[in-house]
Amino acid sequence: MTTTATPTTTTDTNPGYKWVGTRPVRHDGLDKVTGRARFGADLSLPGMLTGAVLRSPHAHARIRSIDTAPAAAMEGVKAVVTGADFPMLESEAGEGGEGAVDFRDLCRNIMARDKVLYEGHALAAVAATSRRVALAALAAIKVDYEVLPHVIDVEEAMAPDAPILHEDMFTSGVEPAPEKPSNIADRCLYERGDVDQAFARADVVVEREFATRPVHQGYIEPHAVVVDTSEDGRAVVWCSSQGHFMVRTLTAKLLGWEPSRIKVIPAEIGGGFGGKTTVYIEPVATLLSQKAGRPVKIVMTRDEVFRATGPTSGSKMRLKVGALRDGTLVAAEGWLAYQAGAFKGSPVELGVMCFLAPYDVANFRIEGFDVVNNMPKVAAYRAPGAPMAAFASETVLDEIAAELEMDPLELRIRNAAEEGVKSFYGPRFRKIGYRETIDAVRDHPHYSVPLGPNQGRGVASGFWFNFGSVSSATVHINEDGGASVMTGSPDIGGSRASMALMAAEELGIDVYRITPIVADTESIGFTDLTGGSRVTHATGMAVIEACRKVVADLRARAAKMWDVDVDEVEWVEGRAQHAGGNHPPLSTEDLAETSGKTGGPITATASLNARGAGVAFSTQVCDVEVDPETGAVKILRYTTAQDAGRAIHPSYVEGQMQGGVVQGIGWALNEEYIFDGRGAMENPGFLDYRMPVASDLPMIDTVIVEVPNPGHPYGVRGVGEVGIVPPMAAVANAIHDATGLRLEELPMSPVKVLAAIGANGD
Amino acid sequence: MTTTATPTTTTDTNPGYKWVGTRPVRHDGLDKVTGRARFGADLSLPGMLTGAVLRSPHAHARIRSIDTAPAAAMEGVKAVVTGADFPMLESEAGEGGEGAVDFRDLCRNIMARDKVLYEGHALAAVAATSRRVALAALAAIKVDYEVLPHVIDVEEAMAPDAPILHEDMFTSGVEPAPEKPSNIADRCLYERGDVDQAFARADVVVEREFATRPVHQGYIEPHAVVVDTSEDGRAVVWCSSQGHFMVRTLTAKLLGWEPSRIKVIPAEIGGGFGGKTTVYIEPVATLLSQKAGRPVKIVMTRDEVFRATGPTSGSKMRLKVGALRDGTLVAAEGWLAYQAGAFKGSPVELGVMCFLAPYDVANFRIEGFDVVNNMPKVAAYRAPGAPMAAFASETVLDEIAAELEMDPLELRIRNAAEEGVKSFYGPRFRKIGYRETIDAVRDHPHYSVPLGPNQGRGVASGFWFNFGSVSSATVHINEDGGASVMTGSPDIGGSRASMALMAAEELGIDVYRITPIVADTESIGFTDLTGGSRVTHATGMAVIEACRKVVADLRARAAKMWDVDVDEVEWVEGRAQHAGGNHPPLSTEDLAETSGKTGGPITATASLNARGAGVAFSTQVCDVEVDPETGAVKILRYTTAQDAGRAIHPSYVEGQMQGGVVQGIGWALNEEYIFDGRGAMENPGFLDYRMPVASDLPMIDTVIVEVPNPGHPYGVRGVGEVGIVPPMAAVANAIHDATGLRLEELPMSPVKVLAAIGANGD
Repeated sequence: MTTTATPTTTTDTNPGYKWVGTRPVRHDGLDKVTGRARFGADLSLPGMLTGAVLRSPHAHARIRSIDTAPAAAMEGVKAVVTGADFPMLESEAGEGGEGAVDFRDLCRNIMARDKVLYEGHALAAVAATSRRVALAALAAIKVDYEVLPHVIDVEEAMAPDAPILHEDMFTSGVEPAPEKPSNIADRCLYERGDVDQAFARADVVVEREFATRPVHQGYIEPHAVVVDTSEDGRAVVWCSSQGHFMVRTLTAKLLGWEPSRIKVIPAEIGGGFGGKTTVYIEPVATLLSQKAGRPVKIVMTRDEVFRATGPTSGSKMRLKVGALRDGTLVAAEGWLAYQAGAFKGSPVELGVMCFLAPYDVANFRIEGFDVVNNMPKVAAYRAPGAPMAAFASETVLDEIAAELEMDPLELRIRNAAEEGVKSFYGPRFRKIGYRETIDAVRDHPHYSVPLGPNQGRGVASGFWFNFGSVSSATVHINEDGGASVMTGSPDIGGSRASMALMAAEELGIDVYRITPIVADTESIGFTDLTGGSRVTHATGMAVIEACRKVVADLRARAAKMWDVDVDEVEWVEGRAQHAGGNHPPLSTEDLAETSGKTGGPITATASLNARGAGVAFSTQVCDVEVDPETGAVKILRYTTAQDAGRAIHPSYVEGQMQGGVVQGIGWALNEEYIFDGRGAMENPGFLDYRMPVASDLPMIDTVIVEVPNPGHPYGVRGVGEVGIVPPMAAVANAIHDATGLRLEELPMSPVKVLAAIGANGD
Repeated sequence: MTTTATPTTTTDTNPGYKWVGTRPVRHDGLDKVTGRARFGADLSLPGMLTGAVLRSPHAHARIRSIDTAPAAAMEGVKAVVTGADFPMLESEAGEGGEGAVDFRDLCRNIMARDKVLYEGHALAAVAATSRRVALAALAAIKVDYEVLPHVIDVEEAMAPDAPILHEDMFTSGVEPAPEKPSNIADRCLYERGDVDQAFARADVVVEREFATRPVHQGYIEPHAVVVDTSEDGRAVVWCSSQGHFMVRTLTAKLLGWEPSRIKVIPAEIGGGFGGKTTVYIEPVATLLSQKAGRPVKIVMTRDEVFRATGPTSGSKMRLKVGALRDGTLVAAEGWLAYQAGAFKGSPVELGVMCFLAPYDVANFRIEGFDVVNNMPKVAAYRAPGAPMAAFASETVLDEIAAELEMDPLELRIRNAAEEGVKSFYGPRFRKIGYRETIDAVRDHPHYSVPLGPNQGRGVASGFWFNFGSVSSATVHINEDGGASVMTGSPDIGGSRASMALMAAEELGIDVYRITPIVADTESIGFTDLTGGSRVTHATGMAVIEACRKVVADLRARAAKMWDVDVDEVEWVEGRAQHAGGNHPPLSTEDLAETSGKTGGPITATASLNARGAGVAFSTQVCDVEVDPETGAVKILRYTTAQDAGRAIHPSYVEGQMQGGVVQGIGWALNEEYIFDGRGAMENPGFLDYRMPVASDLPMIDTVIVEVPNPGHPYGVRGVGEVGIVPPMAAVANAIHDATGLRLEELPMSPVKVLAAIGANGD
């Protein structure tokens, strides 16, 4: 995606960096544009088998029996596995990056036992000498199903008489503990102040109900894995994922292995957006390879990706907000129910926490429900849980502004959270840049361009936490004075370039003399996954720390060569300088060349659990034109302002901002899972599942706001996620501005817009 | 090779180690016996081309012209290179592990310019879509040669009227500087005391002349490389070598690239013995790949390996030694001339330095000559230069013992160097175990077994320096408490196992929970090559240092968890123990599991330039039977005692001891380069180049002597090389004992033995 040259708003105008903030060509760029980069499906090994997965045609059924014998007997079939081949795991919550993982559920999700819980649910797999043979073997497996009633809609799933997915699941978080099983896995509640009293004194109260549909992350690259097991009980796993350490941990856990037996080599990744933060086929391919004694490759089809990997939740939400005449928000009451898919664990609590997080509201009460239903288990998707919540809250704020006849940005400025404010979810904010993002939009030329007939303008803001967590980095100075910078973070959005920029800044050497490497699980310290917008922050901190150790060593080497105290040696722009000026400077090249004589090669590692990931805010403005004949909504212009804290590589920050907006627009206007009466997905392909393409959209203008995060040496905040939070509300508010219609259900597709126009008596 | 359970002689009987000194199955063992391990030729890439090299049919010729156009025009030929494609390098000595490298010479060795200097000398290369096309393309290249007279014998090459290989080469190390070019590249001299006066007072003087032939390292795996270059001017090189950093350095230098542009991934290596410490095809394949824009694989044939990769020097040597009646060696005078092959750099100076190194001799004068000749440039071969020298010196000592009617071991005991003695080559010895190896042989049952008719027994000793140099290690504690131990040392003789054993000892965890890894050039700090018997010593020290950093960190984590001072935490058998006993111990597993909360993953690197590689000695005894009808010599029994300092993995120490002996026996009895009148090698295959096979040999008995090296934390000395030093003399001395014949020329093949028997008037 090309990027526009856009203004950057920054609170310190001259940070004095040489490399940070520049836009070098990414180190992996040529490999990616020439097709040389190797993605998950690009590895082939001698003797490799093709794996394929048998999937349920039913949305809900009991498995009376599975007979795999006919498949196993076929020529060319080398291994067959079913759920019975996996160990019985206790329900145990582990650490898995974004939220806890229930291994028992995870295991049953990747290979059903007893029951299938959604159309597409895996229940057996084969490895064979060709894909043709593998598919024939799947067809030969005889499954005796007892089809059960199914439920998909979140409110229907909550009903007392709903078909129950898990007979042993009882709602947690409610008092008294329920006696009957339910599809409501969990209930959470965030409240503060006296909500009823606050509503009583409000001058304006708006109450609305919203609904959203499950949407898929829609990464270009389907899941793919090659596993080679060896006779000594070890496995090498090559796959595309957001975290190869996560793949190792989860695969080991699901197979009952020690993680050390598994080496995971990260392939390049063609998009994840949260959807590759868990495993589907990796443990299956490992078992197949072990049984067959040969390497096994499994590549999902797009159909399988849609039917069996995580979309994000559809939701039902109710929100009531009260404000004073001057615009002060005084009370909020909310109710959110999110679909979890077949196993508990929707991002509803994150949605609750983000609901009105940009604002300083004294009284609120927000309740959330995590609800299982007969669709694929949801997975993380860019700022999980927040976009639906913001669709509701930012639409209601727009209505309040309208009722108060106040500019919607002015309403937001009046209530914007700032440093020291106790956040909606608990902690007090440190230095944040929300207000600055609103100012950036208000001051942007876009905000004052006149609109034509059937055109409208909407604004919305969004909040995301950003995560820290565990990262490792190793830095080596090469013999020629260049440096190799290894991390354990898969590079999705340009992190090789941002790591190299930070290393160049610290070491004082040219960014192209840095070789940034994404290392396998045996070659780098444990590193949590690429997600939660954490890599540039947390892995970047590890890189900075390792580089600082290297610089300390370089100074010590110079001190040794000069026979002076190390305190007399300064490191300036890649060179050791003697404070007294008694010695000519020594460059990194000089010190590398002589390193054998001063103590050997120069290397360092750093590992840390990063705290202080600064929170992120985005404010966006959208112009639309609504075709009254067709109901089609055209995005005329879109501008997004986001606080990056410090943009290490501004082009990739802009890319993240634009990408988030584009996905949000798709979610707003067209994307949705459509189920037939049997609970089967009707649109599992990109022709029918309508994602926006380049010709659907204008260039998304970006304004990078830089309010440095005090928790990072350069002030970095995560930038990957918050961009997707405002668009649904921004588009809905723009449609309202154009048509006077309030759409409260996503997607706002032509058919819905047309229906609303009709219902409005047009 | 199976090993016998043999006694170990040690100077400290209870070192208290748990893992060091045990014999676990090597970590790479299963992969190697099942064929899973991937060697140099085992990688294939999509679109890969086959490279092939055109080699000179002449031993010495001027290249009037090369016309590659007919080859380049052939269908399927994608690239052609000649010497003109390489940059013109100045003659500049660089650092290359064992001895300096002249890059200009190296470049001309891998691809001739102007002249070809030996039969097999590369002068062009092609990359084509198949080997058939590549060979046809080579045949289509038209070379106009002006054939020149050639010279192979070392003394003939030294003659004033010899054909001159390099018109610009003048002997260095002589005064006055010569005016005429010569094939004598260099002369060195080591002397001490008053040699003439000492000979005058000697009671016995023996003077002899010796000759040896060039022999090849004979590794099982021929050189093989796959190179993939990318559009951004970088290259990934996959190859089998003794040092992937060496491959990177030399390839970069020869192409005029920055080393950082090249990533070298170490394949498994099927033997090197010094012969894979330089490059032949790697820079050629890189250029071909760059020109073709596709991956290129080159695999040498055995014929090419013999004709164009380093054998070791043939030599001519004269040695005169004087002794007193009581056996004291008082004087030595020596003259050594070693073939260097087509470019300067024989190991003659190492031969001079090792000549009588095991002994304390007050007066000596040893002169060495490095002589170029029309054969492949020699490469390092196990204890380079020492075996030929020991063949001469240990034979002469045997004669002196005979003349003095003294047991040959007794003569050696009387003169054995010990701690504090100034070595032959300069420095004073620290603690050494030479005397202990002689004792071990004298006390071994083998030494007193009666001999039959035509049978004889010989002994000999040998010395080798062992090298230290630069190594790096990185250690990560996995989430399950296992550890990953990365080094940059290719594993030839079991170093993965020895690194894992030392890490297990330091960390206190099971050796099988250590994953030892040989990491590529981007993933580990610079590490010098696997050679000079340096890996267990130097890389081991880096592993130990990194593990000690990890243990310090583990103790700090425990202190943090217990909220006590770190000084109160001891590390005992893989567990943190509170000195006061106030807390239950924390295992590595416990600390790994909680590491996220105590500061992130636990990792460390260490890089060093290892000093204090302890010298190595070996004493060996050999029984032979000589068939007077055929001249065939049969090895009846062979025992070798060697000072390992500390045997980390005794089985691999024994394997090194046995392997050295076996190669020495081959060199003694059968191996040699045979040239025809045109200077072409007549026996470039294993049918005609006769290496000993299992059926030729008895089990080699081993006695590991352990006199700890004060320069290593565990006392390790290098063990890889010294074993090859004594066998030629031990066998010659045994033949003398059986027949009364002194053979002074290698190999002591049936035809030579038969000739000596005939000359003896039999």
